[in-house]
Amino acid sequence: MTELKNDRFLRALARQPVDRTPVWMMRQAGRYLPEYRKIRNQAGDFMSLCKNTDLACEVALQPIDRFNFDAAILFSDILTIPDAMGLGLYFVEGEGPKFHKPLRTETDINDLNIVDTKRDLKYVTDAVSLIRRELNGRVPLIGFSGSPWTLATYMIEGQSSRDFPNIKMMLYKQPESLHQLLDKLALSVINYLNAQISSGAQAVQIFDTWGGVLSHDAYAEFSLAYMEKIVNGLVRHSEGRDVPVILFTKGGGQWLELLADTGCDGIGLDWTTDIGSARRRVGDRVALQGNMDPAVLRSDQSSIEYQVKSILQSYGTGVGHIFNLGHGITPDIDPNNVKAFVDAVHQYSQR
Amino acid sequence: MTELKNDRFLRALARQPVDRTPVWMMRQAGRYLPEYRKIRNQAGDFMSLCKNTDLACEVALQPIDRFNFDAAILFSDILTIPDAMGLGLYFVEGEGPKFHKPLRTETDINDLNIVDTKRDLKYVTDAVSLIRRELNGRVPLIGFSGSPWTLATYMIEGQSSRDFPNIKMMLYKQPESLHQLLDKLALSVINYLNAQISSGAQAVQIFDTWGGVLSHDAYAEFSLAYMEKIVNGLVRHSEGRDVPVILFTKGGGQWLELLADTGCDGIGLDWTTDIGSARRRVGDRVALQGNMDPAVLRSDQSSIEYQVKSILQSYGTGVGHIFNLGHGITPDIDPNNVKAFVDAVHQYSQR
Repeated sequence: MTELKNDRFLRALARQPVDRTPVWMMRQAGRYLPEYRKIRNQAGDFMSLCKNTDLACEVALQPIDRFNFDAAILFSDILTIPDAMGLGLYFVEGEGPKFHKPLRTETDINDLNIVDTKRDLKYVTDAVSLIRRELNGRVPLIGFSGSPWTLATYMIEGQSSRDFPNIKMMLYKQPESLHQLLDKLALSVINYLNAQISSGAQAVQIFDTWGGVLSHDAYAEFSLAYMEKIVNGLVRHSEGRDVPVILFTKGGGQWLELLADTGCDGIGLDWTTDIGSARRRVGDRVALQGNMDPAVLRSDQSSIEYQVKSILQSYGTGVGHIFNLGHGITPDIDPNNVKAFVDAVHQYSQR
Repeated sequence: MTELKNDRFLRALARQPVDRTPVWMMRQAGRYLPEYRKIRNQAGDFMSLCKNTDLACEVALQPIDRFNFDAAILFSDILTIPDAMGLGLYFVEGEGPKFHKPLRTETDINDLNIVDTKRDLKYVTDAVSLIRRELNGRVPLIGFSGSPWTLATYMIEGQSSRDFPNIKMMLYKQPESLHQLLDKLALSVINYLNAQISSGAQAVQIFDTWGGVLSHDAYAEFSLAYMEKIVNGLVRHSEGRDVPVILFTKGGGQWLELLADTGCDGIGLDWTTDIGSARRRVGDRVALQGNMDPAVLRSDQSSIEYQVKSILQSYGTGVGHIFNLGHGITPDIDPNNVKAFVDAVHQYSQR
């Protein structure tokens, strides 16, 4: 394997000193880039793009070619696992992901098979291998998965939801069925992320997009516990390096101590949490990733610089900070503002 | 004025001992009740119901007649103030509130008049007076308003939003314009709530439904500061009693200390916050209201009882707890489950 030329991201996750704060951006390969929209149109629908190894690789590299990001991320969707389980993922423009066959009964849950990545999701590991090769050591590659709870919300609701009526009914009324589902999903995610790691992912992130809709107790029991199971089931060392794990629960600012207790290496923060307070709460046990409000990118260069400086200042000096947005970048952003963001992080964090 | 027969709710807000924990429910007058749906159909659209004093009074009393709630709340909408300012509130079934004339320019903000409740919102104070009279001292009456930030989100976006693109652009790019708007709204809310208090409201709650979409710093500057201004501008004593103020920021679990510092009497908690930890954080400075996940009401009596007991236990013994849901009840709930909820709170909190 080629030597890694820029290891700031991995060093920060290992709480080692860096010359400047590494930065990447959730959904950095995405619709705000004209070159992405071109490839996306060429591929047809979103899942066809994910499943086309060459094109998935090309869009993953676009932001790396254009900006000075310190990490690349696999181009894929968080819902590949339920799709591989046979639920039939599809996308409706402006409405987000949907499933043709959402889970309706206990039998549906009983019948689910744990995913065998090599058999069922080869297109993902192929993309990991190719992106890794094409990166050629420029920056590390992040693999990812949805969290079991987050996958389950889509599988049971059949789509995005505001109140999550069906899965919450199951949670409060038939918790054993939900545990059975989450267990199958956790085992699938372990298999999936380990396959990504053995294909070349140098770090992994678990996206718990909907953990924040749970009560404190339900979060611990139905989301966190399964992320912890995954953390414990992952290959944490590969190619002579540690493979760090980042957990990101959107709306999880109240549960940082619990997240740090899982044994993960980094915690992703959404923008509602003050990163300085977060650091005081978790100490130097984990790295912290984040957390600028993505909406700041709708403003102008001077506002972006102000917000970047304010987050750097709040985090303070020392190790363990990876700069990111508090959630994915939205499609309406001017790429020049992304450049201003990345440059500001590097400039104002220079040691 | 008739003597108050049940003052548990006011005693809990004053951190005085009670024989059992008082309970009410956000949106307790609402579509889950068949008798509400009947009146709602009779009135026509939702705003016509709000503006019909007799019918608004009738639906406010329905949950009091049916269940043993310890407080009644004015039946109205949080968006009456922008409607009175001329933005033209209307409702589209299944899509929530919208405005015919959302704010688009600085001139739109300049042109807004501070609301004069007696002139512009007489239908609200009429409803307060009538509900208070018809309650006849059974339980206290809560008045309410939306928070300035929350009102501003609808006024600028024109409707509910997921990402709040327009108001956030203003927040980061033209913060002075947003402050001008929020200031006008805060003065309007002060006028509005004081008018409700002089018409008979015995406590008031400010609903900050969208404060939780802000970053820590932006929350303090653009939502909390204006709620604090309102707290300081309210008549806090009327009819020989204190008039307590409750602040409720949905998604505000990280900011409880800041909320307690405003000088309010109570803080509403959504269901994501552990109420025991919340109490340890704010001490006995304020009462805490909440915080069962509304989705628990979708389950069954034994699950409801379990969750009620768990919250009572987490809060612990002593003063200052008002039981409520962590957000409004949804229309799909069986009224029998509401009865189970109210009865469980009273039964398991008996001193």
